Amino acid sequence: MSDASHLTFDLAKPGVSRGHLVVPRGADCEALSLPVYCLNKGEGPRLLITGGCHGDELEGPIVARRLVEWLPEAQTCGRIIIVPVLNPPAVQAWSRNTPVDGLNLNRVFPGCADGSVTERIADAVSRLLLPMADTVFDLHSFGPTWDLPPASATHPIADPDLMAKTIRMAEAFKLPITLVWEHSDTPGMFDVLVQSQGKVFVCAELGGGTVSAKALAIYEAGVRNALIALGLVEGKAECLSFREQKYSQTLETLLSDELKSPARGIFEPRCSVLDEVEQGDLIGKLHPMESVSAGSIDVRAPTTSTVCAIRSGAHVDADEVVAFLARPLKL
Amino acid sequence: MSDASHLTFDLAKPGVSRGHLVVPRGADCEALSLPVYCLNKGEGPRLLITGGCHGDELEGPIVARRLVEWLPEAQTCGRIIIVPVLNPPAVQAWSRNTPVDGLNLNRVFPGCADGSVTERIADAVSRLLLPMADTVFDLHSFGPTWDLPPASATHPIADPDLMAKTIRMAEAFKLPITLVWEHSDTPGMFDVLVQSQGKVFVCAELGGGTVSAKALAIYEAGVRNALIALGLVEGKAECLSFREQKYSQTLETLLSDELKSPARGIFEPRCSVLDEVEQGDLIGKLHPMESVSAGSIDVRAPTTSTVCAIRSGAHVDADEVVAFLARPLKL
Repeated sequence: MSDASHLTFDLAKPGVSRGHLVVPRGADCEALSLPVYCLNKGEGPRLLITGGCHGDELEGPIVARRLVEWLPEAQTCGRIIIVPVLNPPAVQAWSRNTPVDGLNLNRVFPGCADGSVTERIADAVSRLLLPMADTVFDLHSFGPTWDLPPASATHPIADPDLMAKTIRMAEAFKLPITLVWEHSDTPGMFDVLVQSQGKVFVCAELGGGTVSAKALAIYEAGVRNALIALGLVEGKAECLSFREQKYSQTLETLLSDELKSPARGIFEPRCSVLDEVEQGDLIGKLHPMESVSAGSIDVRAPTTSTVCAIRSGAHVDADEVVAFLARPLKL
Repeated sequence: MSDASHLTFDLAKPGVSRGHLVVPRGADCEALSLPVYCLNKGEGPRLLITGGCHGDELEGPIVARRLVEWLPEAQTCGRIIIVPVLNPPAVQAWSRNTPVDGLNLNRVFPGCADGSVTERIADAVSRLLLPMADTVFDLHSFGPTWDLPPASATHPIADPDLMAKTIRMAEAFKLPITLVWEHSDTPGMFDVLVQSQGKVFVCAELGGGTVSAKALAIYEAGVRNALIALGLVEGKAECLSFREQKYSQTLETLLSDELKSPARGIFEPRCSVLDEVEQGDLIGKLHPMESVSAGSIDVRAPTTSTVCAIRSGAHVDADEVVAFLARPLKL
């Protein structure tokens, strides 16, 4: 066995093939074998679908496994490479970051062949899989302590043509929200690397909280809609209703739309995602739990906006983000 | 300051008072001060409401804090002692068990004055708070990796009179489910101690997954309904609808109703809580994620039943419980 990262099978083989992306061992852990599915139907778009970048976002791995079941029959052209779990140690630990080195896989791209295990995973993906694709769907979610409507997202991109192309691709998911998300911490993100190569990258943020059967149906329909738009699958796009709402909207959330906790304690949501709020409306309450004299503190909307994501079910520190507001995107 | 556990205020004081239950320091950590609220309106039922026994179940602490806001005006008689967070180190760590000693607070009752921190908490609660109450509502939930309808629960109790009284009290919450739950691991549970003293103990299992504003309203209404039934508060019971269902049912779940994972991997729910299923119906799929040759495995219903709770959003080991089925209670 080679000590360099490698694939155990040939991605150029026609039809359906499966094998592993081997990430070599290092001082910190043994070699990893990431299951990879490759669906080759000749000429056409070249798509890479990844899930399980963060170990506590299991919507992506489940949707990826569901695709593997029906895509071999449905796909009409092109090549689709599916990696349900990018970060097996994190998924097994149900942990956002990799337990072995504590790193966030989505902050170490393009990785490093002789780095720690998270950097070796990023390196293997960047060198062996990414060159085989023109478009990437990376399936994330907001994790167990957030509520979020199913969304397809992108960070703002400097190149206006790639930005427009990316938003069109994201909108093709027809999920409740297409989101342009200004983010303060982008170095080392997978999308930054992919976009630097002029390729389209859509980050699906498949909800948050409990992974339910109903929610999974929405997520899977979203990815199928995007596959139809790419021309890889024939069929009619479906827009499934989410909590009685059956339409899509394109929103943007800026750094100034992050509402932060005024103190350490338990955040109680007092509104729901997709609620329209006006300046001064109650978003939630922060309950300091350590003192009987410290009263609960209101968190209020600074401007008219839509509640895009809201924290729930966790003890937060002062200045942790507890909600993202958003407004219709103006291009 | 005394080295023994103590209260910083007098629970017999009329009106609303607040202070701390001090759990003394030990070799493993400093002293803890648990906020305690006491609402004294003279003669009448004596109730203890506790939350935050497990640190990743924050529905209870939030509901307890909400009660503190309106109960002082609404309460007409009796005494209500409220401890929103029984286990502050676990809540701060968002961890089921106490991080310091790894113990589950709900398995160490009645505790031990010179034990590790979890045992010292249990000891302080058992000796200083429990004697002041005839009825206990302990506010739990199923945590972030489960879906469960809001429920009031009890384990089976040997004494038939106490069992009947406990079920009546649990039904008074008017939550979607009143649940009699056969459990294999009851030694050291808070309810076992309380019931051994002939007192009524209801374990509220306030849902699972994301803590949303809508769900919190249901939970709070449930506790208010029980307070009305106890005669502590005047008013009309309210039965809020949960996912379009607006009725309560009393179910039982036996050890044989625990569906276990057939292998290690990601469990995908294929049905929803409160679904009625028949023998052979698909409950979910287990996706082994480490091998490309291992196919997904169906988990099916062994008998006609109601889906009471279902696992989601987590990587499970073989033989971990992934669903609880239930059926109408026959007394």
